[in-house]
Amino acid sequence: MALKVAVIGAGSIGFTRGIVKDILAVPEFADTHFALTDINERNLDMVYRLLGRDIEASGLPATLSATLERREALTEANYVFSVVRVGGLEGFATDIDIPLKYGVDQCVGDTLCAGGIMYGQRNIPVILDLCRDISEVAAPDCLFVNHANPMAMNMWAVNQYGPDVRSVGLCHGVEGGHYLIADAFGLKREEVDIICAGINHQTWYVSIKHKGEDLTGKLLAALEKHPVYSETERVRIDMLRRFGYFSTESNGHLSEYLPWYRKRPEEIVNWIDPEYRSWINGETGGYLRVCTEGRNWFETEFPKWMEEGPQPIGPEHRGGEHGSYIMEGLETGRVYRGHFNVPNNGTISNLPEDAIVEVPGYVDANGIGIPRVGDLPLGCAAVCSASVTVQRLAVEAGVHGDDVLLRQAMMMDPLVGAVCDPREIWQMVDEMLVAGEQWLPQYGKAIEDAKRRLASGGPITPDPRGAGATRQRTRTPEEVGKARG
Amino acid sequence: MALKVAVIGAGSIGFTRGIVKDILAVPEFADTHFALTDINERNLDMVYRLLGRDIEASGLPATLSATLERREALTEANYVFSVVRVGGLEGFATDIDIPLKYGVDQCVGDTLCAGGIMYGQRNIPVILDLCRDISEVAAPDCLFVNHANPMAMNMWAVNQYGPDVRSVGLCHGVEGGHYLIADAFGLKREEVDIICAGINHQTWYVSIKHKGEDLTGKLLAALEKHPVYSETERVRIDMLRRFGYFSTESNGHLSEYLPWYRKRPEEIVNWIDPEYRSWINGETGGYLRVCTEGRNWFETEFPKWMEEGPQPIGPEHRGGEHGSYIMEGLETGRVYRGHFNVPNNGTISNLPEDAIVEVPGYVDANGIGIPRVGDLPLGCAAVCSASVTVQRLAVEAGVHGDDVLLRQAMMMDPLVGAVCDPREIWQMVDEMLVAGEQWLPQYGKAIEDAKRRLASGGPITPDPRGAGATRQRTRTPEEVGKARG
Amino acid sequence: MALKVAVIGAGSIGFTRGIVKDILAVPEFADTHFALTDINERNLDMVYRLLGRDIEASGLPATLSATLERREALTEANYVFSVVRVGGLEGFATDIDIPLKYGVDQCVGDTLCAGGIMYGQRNIPVILDLCRDISEVAAPDCLFVNHANPMAMNMWAVNQYGPDVRSVGLCHGVEGGHYLIADAFGLKREEVDIICAGINHQTWYVSIKHKGEDLTGKLLAALEKHPVYSETERVRIDMLRRFGYFSTESNGHLSEYLPWYRKRPEEIVNWIDPEYRSWINGETGGYLRVCTEGRNWFETEFPKWMEEGPQPIGPEHRGGEHGSYIMEGLETGRVYRGHFNVPNNGTISNLPEDAIVEVPGYVDANGIGIPRVGDLPLGCAAVCSASVTVQRLAVEAGVHGDDVLLRQAMMMDPLVGAVCDPREIWQMVDEMLVAGEQWLPQYGKAIEDAKRRLASGGPITPDPRGAGATRQRTRTPEEVGKARG
Amino acid sequence: MALKVAVIGAGSIGFTRGIVKDILAVPEFADTHFALTDINERNLDMVYRLLGRDIEASGLPATLSATLERREALTEANYVFSVVRVGGLEGFATDIDIPLKYGVDQCVGDTLCAGGIMYGQRNIPVILDLCRDISEVAAPDCLFVNHANPMAMNMWAVNQYGPDVRSVGLCHGVEGGHYLIADAFGLKREEVDIICAGINHQTWYVSIKHKGEDLTGKLLAALEKHPVYSETERVRIDMLRRFGYFSTESNGHLSEYLPWYRKRPEEIVNWIDPEYRSWINGETGGYLRVCTEGRNWFETEFPKWMEEGPQPIGPEHRGGEHGSYIMEGLETGRVYRGHFNVPNNGTISNLPEDAIVEVPGYVDANGIGIPRVGDLPLGCAAVCSASVTVQRLAVEAGVHGDDVLLRQAMMMDPLVGAVCDPREIWQMVDEMLVAGEQWLPQYGKAIEDAKRRLASGGPITPDPRGAGATRQRTRTPEEVGKARG
Repeated sequence: MALKVAVIGAGSIGFTRGIVKDILAVPEFADTHFALTDINERNLDMVYRLLGRDIEASGLPATLSATLERREALTEANYVFSVVRVGGLEGFATDIDIPLKYGVDQCVGDTLCAGGIMYGQRNIPVILDLCRDISEVAAPDCLFVNHANPMAMNMWAVNQYGPDVRSVGLCHGVEGGHYLIADAFGLKREEVDIICAGINHQTWYVSIKHKGEDLTGKLLAALEKHPVYSETERVRIDMLRRFGYFSTESNGHLSEYLPWYRKRPEEIVNWIDPEYRSWINGETGGYLRVCTEGRNWFETEFPKWMEEGPQPIGPEHRGGEHGSYIMEGLETGRVYRGHFNVPNNGTISNLPEDAIVEVPGYVDANGIGIPRVGDLPLGCAAVCSASVTVQRLAVEAGVHGDDVLLRQAMMMDPLVGAVCDPREIWQMVDEMLVAGEQWLPQYGKAIEDAKRRLASGGPITPDPRGAGATRQRTRTPEEVGKARG
Repeated sequence: MALKVAVIGAGSIGFTRGIVKDILAVPEFADTHFALTDINERNLDMVYRLLGRDIEASGLPATLSATLERREALTEANYVFSVVRVGGLEGFATDIDIPLKYGVDQCVGDTLCAGGIMYGQRNIPVILDLCRDISEVAAPDCLFVNHANPMAMNMWAVNQYGPDVRSVGLCHGVEGGHYLIADAFGLKREEVDIICAGINHQTWYVSIKHKGEDLTGKLLAALEKHPVYSETERVRIDMLRRFGYFSTESNGHLSEYLPWYRKRPEEIVNWIDPEYRSWINGETGGYLRVCTEGRNWFETEFPKWMEEGPQPIGPEHRGGEHGSYIMEGLETGRVYRGHFNVPNNGTISNLPEDAIVEVPGYVDANGIGIPRVGDLPLGCAAVCSASVTVQRLAVEAGVHGDDVLLRQAMMMDPLVGAVCDPREIWQMVDEMLVAGEQWLPQYGKAIEDAKRRLASGGPITPDPRGAGATRQRTRTPEEVGKARG
Repeated sequence: MALKVAVIGAGSIGFTRGIVKDILAVPEFADTHFALTDINERNLDMVYRLLGRDIEASGLPATLSATLERREALTEANYVFSVVRVGGLEGFATDIDIPLKYGVDQCVGDTLCAGGIMYGQRNIPVILDLCRDISEVAAPDCLFVNHANPMAMNMWAVNQYGPDVRSVGLCHGVEGGHYLIADAFGLKREEVDIICAGINHQTWYVSIKHKGEDLTGKLLAALEKHPVYSETERVRIDMLRRFGYFSTESNGHLSEYLPWYRKRPEEIVNWIDPEYRSWINGETGGYLRVCTEGRNWFETEFPKWMEEGPQPIGPEHRGGEHGSYIMEGLETGRVYRGHFNVPNNGTISNLPEDAIVEVPGYVDANGIGIPRVGDLPLGCAAVCSASVTVQRLAVEAGVHGDDVLLRQAMMMDPLVGAVCDPREIWQMVDEMLVAGEQWLPQYGKAIEDAKRRLASGGPITPDPRGAGATRQRTRTPEEVGKARG
Repeated sequence: MALKVAVIGAGSIGFTRGIVKDILAVPEFADTHFALTDINERNLDMVYRLLGRDIEASGLPATLSATLERREALTEANYVFSVVRVGGLEGFATDIDIPLKYGVDQCVGDTLCAGGIMYGQRNIPVILDLCRDISEVAAPDCLFVNHANPMAMNMWAVNQYGPDVRSVGLCHGVEGGHYLIADAFGLKREEVDIICAGINHQTWYVSIKHKGEDLTGKLLAALEKHPVYSETERVRIDMLRRFGYFSTESNGHLSEYLPWYRKRPEEIVNWIDPEYRSWINGETGGYLRVCTEGRNWFETEFPKWMEEGPQPIGPEHRGGEHGSYIMEGLETGRVYRGHFNVPNNGTISNLPEDAIVEVPGYVDANGIGIPRVGDLPLGCAAVCSASVTVQRLAVEAGVHGDDVLLRQAMMMDPLVGAVCDPREIWQMVDEMLVAGEQWLPQYGKAIEDAKRRLASGGPITPDPRGAGATRQRTRTPEEVGKARG
């Protein structure tokens, strides 16, 4: 078929190696050309060398190129995968640290809440620019596949303000929860049928079936008596108890989109298991720590990776990410069913038309078909609706560089709104705008004003609670290496 | 699995034999129980004996029962297939013959136009009653599968006025056209990907692809130069020429939904091929003739059929009707893609929300998923829209027994409106109501009024053109037998 | 207040004199400046002289200017009234004469049907251009008031494709029918409350009340026994009989939007009263004749008008057109209720969102408020829906210069579709495109193709019925003068 | 005209006396019959005697009756005004006192937040029952006018689950704010044009004009420098600062619908002016105190009222409540513009279709016309949206007696969600259900369960902060009398 696949942000070794191996596991795609691009030359080079060796060892006719010029990678591309993280870990750190001073204690901070909202402000201009490039130089009908967070804000901006480019947003959250659910029932994942619907990271398993039997209402009991999940998934189980449906999102991430679990610093720790304590279950700034350790470790360990042999490629080594399956459906007609992020347009009838929803879809040679889901259960829709409101404000703010809308997004955010008062929010936004100046070109004027206000001493002295309820030290590459065995 | 499948109107031998064989071709369904019911005891008995022998010969554990009591057949049924034709061929004849006196020359007359509208009036009360029975005695989540025409009106009544019963309407029109299209390009049907969307019998192939190449715009040329289709499909090709997309419906059937091809009696014949002249290409009352011949022939030939051996059952003998594939998808999770009749609800964004549309759907253990199609091409939407208007009026009329709405449906019908004036329409409806009295319980008062008006001499002397432009004599069973070889 | 009011197409003496007198009848508007513009210098000059004299005689501080430069007239205008008729009577004649050769016998021909559709093609580019000028040079928040036909197509193009300009479409049809209804009941118009809703020229009196008593259902009887209306309003009464609601439109104009009354040439005359026979009741090309006579007469009679004295201005001389009342509502806050043409947006819940509807509105200092009407009666909605389909196709055709959509608009037109077949329609459109070439810049390529086809002899020899069922000779100015006394 | 007007909850002396006087101020309504009903016989009798004397003294032919039988009062009524408060002050006290123990400090508590939600649970069954009575015994087309809170929940239940009764919800909040705005600009109310839109008690002045000049953006400055409002309206001004638009609701009431101003007990007092300290500006349980004092005072003072003379009736004594003006518009055709609570249905395009919105409307003999407003400003829509979510859950809970939805409504409530955690909310709802048992017939089973849980000791020991941030003692009638002078 000789397709061209571009990877934007290809320096993310884990993602890039995965998608390349997955695609090459499909016989029809053996001659694919992969065009890698990144703004970090060193990472791009390391990934290029690792992958080049993998491909060579596979004996497949696939080819590989790497470039710092994004448009070059995009030219005539049939598929574009993006995992860009604007601002990198440096920007990410400000998303966690500044809100913490105002009592907003996030675990992940890349989707909603103060951190996710600011992350969206950095990403939106870049993703719109990327889509303009695609519309200008990629192959006609090129599919833009976004993996970058904040998923809903990114896809909303692309669909409402971008050029006419085909796009879909992918996340593996639904699969993770699917596995957990099956496991809770002592079943295999492929035996359990699920319909999952909502918005990215707040998607609900509204139907769980095993050979036609409806298990949806039996999950709470199964989890409550499960020896591990009953400890590690405390917030998720509590949400299931209150709202009747299980959420896709990990315990810690889920807790930061809601007003109920992280607003009292002294109680956050109660929602995290004491024994299996893992960042994903709720640690303050946990994802930032893990990402930082991972990056440092990769840079240190790269020479060793090259000493190890190449990774094998083939159907038996194919991972579970949607990307290669979507390509397979579209190009070969073999039907694939997954969960995708797309504009709602009535798919979920009690969420707004313009929201980006995560829902089941079928892919074959006719395209990506998104069946109508109908109404979400009332309580689930209510929770999603609050987040959609924040996303809409954040997208409009990010596209137009309107800091008043940005502040309103923060006001309406469930956790920020539960923790802060308006003056605190105004000052926190000032600090975040100034800290992110280099990645926020659309906020020039607002940043000048914020600097002036901060220089004259803001009205608020940030809360010393800023240490975070459960923050842990970032480990050295050596420590990480030791822990990974 | 031990499912129970009820067939309503099971005296239709062709349909019933097909669905039973198709279902039993699926390994998981070997122990299905089929419950047949019909109001015609003789036909029901004949079908019961034929099928009983088929099943016995197959060696499968499936079972069979037949009853004149519909609720008995429905009790605990998991699937209900219906092919009821209220009024039978006797009622059908009035749908063709009376309009003909007023210059309305129909070929099929069971979907729209004067005949289809009246057919709907007879069917709607019965189908609503059937659904009430299903909601009361069938298994929970029983799926009602309707094959009866007028499809859109029937399904509209069920969905808007029926009890809360799962339902889907099935027609094989899309498959027929799919085959024809592939053939016109010299391809096999399975090599050609299609998206077909619209309303039943006015569904449009809006996307035709072969290995990713878009063939939609090349079909007109392919058909114009095809030696057979260029003759047999004159109306369809002309519609493709004017509107840019090919329609599912056969040449003759299509022509009676539109104002342009059958309004001048002397020109109707021009739209029918002279050589391969087949009823389906436009013969006046052609389908009535063929159905009548078929029924007579079956009654005559039944003994001979019993002399022949039983029909074989198995995967290699499975037909192409959607029914058994939908069951397979729902019960086993193996994905099936077909085209289904369902309430629009935004699937086709430029047709009314409440219309019944025919669109692609995916079936698996999660249910029947109907992806959003988006806008139909403007001209196609315009043609469908005119029909949807007629359907809405006809459904409201049929459900409420409102003869004024019934007359308005006739007024708005494209062919009736192009041929008749208001006084003619009023009198034609009077005649049709009186002729169908026994099947139109909802029109008691209106029929009394109509009788009185007709008795005092209607204002119009029906047109002697009533013979029909291309009517043919109904053949005897002997003639049919001879022709069938 | 010193408002500036621009009149586009100010050479229309009757309209321009009326709007100027109406506005000056409002005390707050005594110092208005009127800027007249037209493409016809002679007519503009005559109107300027007549009005200048009227204003001078009134003693009011109002001022007047006339210019051939449209943008000059628009500069800083607060209100823009437009009665442009692109192509003038020369273009209009082709709208009537060419369809007549194909059996399409129109009375007015400026709203729908073959003539109205082509009129829209000429108007749409000009009105979009006018609105661009308004957005660039008029006062902020300038209100564009359109009086030109085809009203719905013009307003649709403006609202969907024009710049962001406030606009409203005005027609006095509702008032005329309101008067007739009151008269039929022997009441005064101000005693009768009405709600009228639909689309321009197909608006229905859905509620008629007198002191709280609902008279809607009593109108048919009142009209049937009325000595004059029972003769002059035959089509309107027949429509009321069939559909239950009275339409705004005059007898002859109404008949050409429907498939039932004008398709048989020999019967058209039956729908027109024999005694009071007036063009508006159904004469073939009646409005074209009357307009032509009026224009010729004005040109001849102008010197005499100047000999007569100026017309008086003041509240007691104010006419019933909406324009000055809307201005009064907006500028003074005194509430005015009228019927306006605006995008539907859910006002009539069973017509498409994007259609232009004619519905009640309230005007005060807060703007023009359009209350939700809800569902039209089903039959009325069905009739309007067919026209909306034609309008949508015609607007898309006109904006994009897409002759295929234009032909589809003709196909879907109720009367054209009832009279012609596709080949006739194709050729008729070819003739109309070529005849209107100078006013149809958007159809350059399509017109070239049409010329070539016509030159090689079209497939159809137009019908000799082309004389029209009830056409009358255009009278000379002398004859008109004599008739007017 | 001889209309019959029923007043439900007529024991509310202030309201009943006002509406009777207002209606009798309209000349056409001089012969109205007022039918009063209440469940409190003593209050009803007192009001009957007071009003009887007023009417007698007026010399008008109006008549009066009082009955404990509601259906008797409703029989043949043309208008029904309701101010029912189910549970009276006894129930109201539980709405304030129980949440206070869990840290939820309300000022009014009758619209949203814990108190408003429970108030809705008590009201909904009664208002649905009332509407059923109206549909059965009142005059055809009777208009039900609701004044009772929680307005949006009550009207939502009526419109979604009630019989087909014409209804409108009235509140004078918009008028109060209108006066305040005009005053802030040093203008008279009638000189200032406003469009106010949103949901009851969260309606926003989206357009403020004076003689065509837009003042909307100048209000913040005007209020900030106003000597009184800058102190008394601290929350409202802060909301105007953050969201750009002024809200209808009083300072204290507004603060309890939002997560930002009342969640920290020690800071609540900062939002209330120290000098003009009035309950309406934020006092804990302020409205409960004032209502209690008023009731006690009325009971004590009644004899004195009878000693004073009757109140005068006439146009010059007419109040500003919408009720009599709506009647005047409908019955006489004189146009009235007010702000009304009705189902959204697209009026505000970025709030849900099914929400009850408060928007401008025009009333005349054609009915109550609600013009489309379009989008609310994004931030305002976001705030309303959060409340609409709570209302929808609360209405569904109240209609179906579903305590899980009730708890979810509490979870989603902005202030409750910001203050409590899920376990606290669950227990608080248990306490409130048990306390309100006599008025919550739909919650029989849930109340039994709640009792059992509470008996076994809830998981939470309610917070001792329960005293309330700014609670004041309820004064004796003597003290009130003295204060009123």
